Amino acid sequence: MQLSRKADYALRAVTHFASLPKGKLASIGTVAEAQQIPREFLAKILKDLTWAGILVSYQGVTGGYRLARAPKDISFLNVIEAMEGPISLNLCTQENRCECERMNTCKMRDFWVKQEDYFKKALSRANFAKYKAGGR
Amino acid sequence: MQLSRKADYALRAVTHFASLPKGKLASIGTVAEAQQIPREFLAKILKDLTWAGILVSYQGVTGGYRLARAPKDISFLNVIEAMEGPISLNLCTQENRCECERMNTCKMRDFWVKQEDYFKKALSRANFAKYKAGGR
Repeated sequence: MQLSRKADYALRAVTHFASLPKGKLASIGTVAEAQQIPREFLAKILKDLTWAGILVSYQGVTGGYRLARAPKDISFLNVIEAMEGPISLNLCTQENRCECERMNTCKMRDFWVKQEDYFKKALSRANFAKYKAGGR
Repeated sequence: MQLSRKADYALRAVTHFASLPKGKLASIGTVAEAQQIPREFLAKILKDLTWAGILVSYQGVTGGYRLARAPKDISFLNVIEAMEGPISLNLCTQENRCECERMNTCKMRDFWVKQEDYFKKALSRANFAKYKAGGR
């Protein structure tokens, strides 16, 4: 149970955009180099972040990407779920997907629901005004 | 980032053993049926739990498995790590495996270390005296 490499790269990429002056664009090449992310993989990630409404893309020679909203209004949860879909720490906590017959008698499910709730709240609170690329 | 099916089955199997009278053995077939776990997969899981010192196995026609220690002394963390290895929520929190050059300047790592610490403590506190098979 570990964050995917893709989601980790996406978080890293968003910290980069969050550290730029408002409205400034960055190219795939710039972000790839600065954040040490393989360029092809990053291209796919930025496309997915754009599709999710986290980035805005501009075509053309002077094009690039920027955040679609202020860094404080983008959470880790937004970025991770844009990459991996809804977070569920166990199969039985997935919305509309739990087919477990044991659901109503299994005490362990309560544990997982509680842990997931705590984790998602922490991911929601972590926004990119706090987490930017660069030094501490 | 989700618990593996294998680890979920292992937790389920251990709740079964935890609900038995002290010292009573259960066979693979009994646990598989009661906990709705595919038998072949369960056989592998019980072997791994035995190897990890969580179960003790007895050979022969009247053989089977039992817990190696009291239910209160077995945590979710013990069982999950026996199945999946050490828990690390992100690549950069893995002990002795982080090769990230960004480790000393990346603020996000602190976030992941903190979340992982909280989660592992919760998994350590959850023991099988509290979580047994059966009704609430």
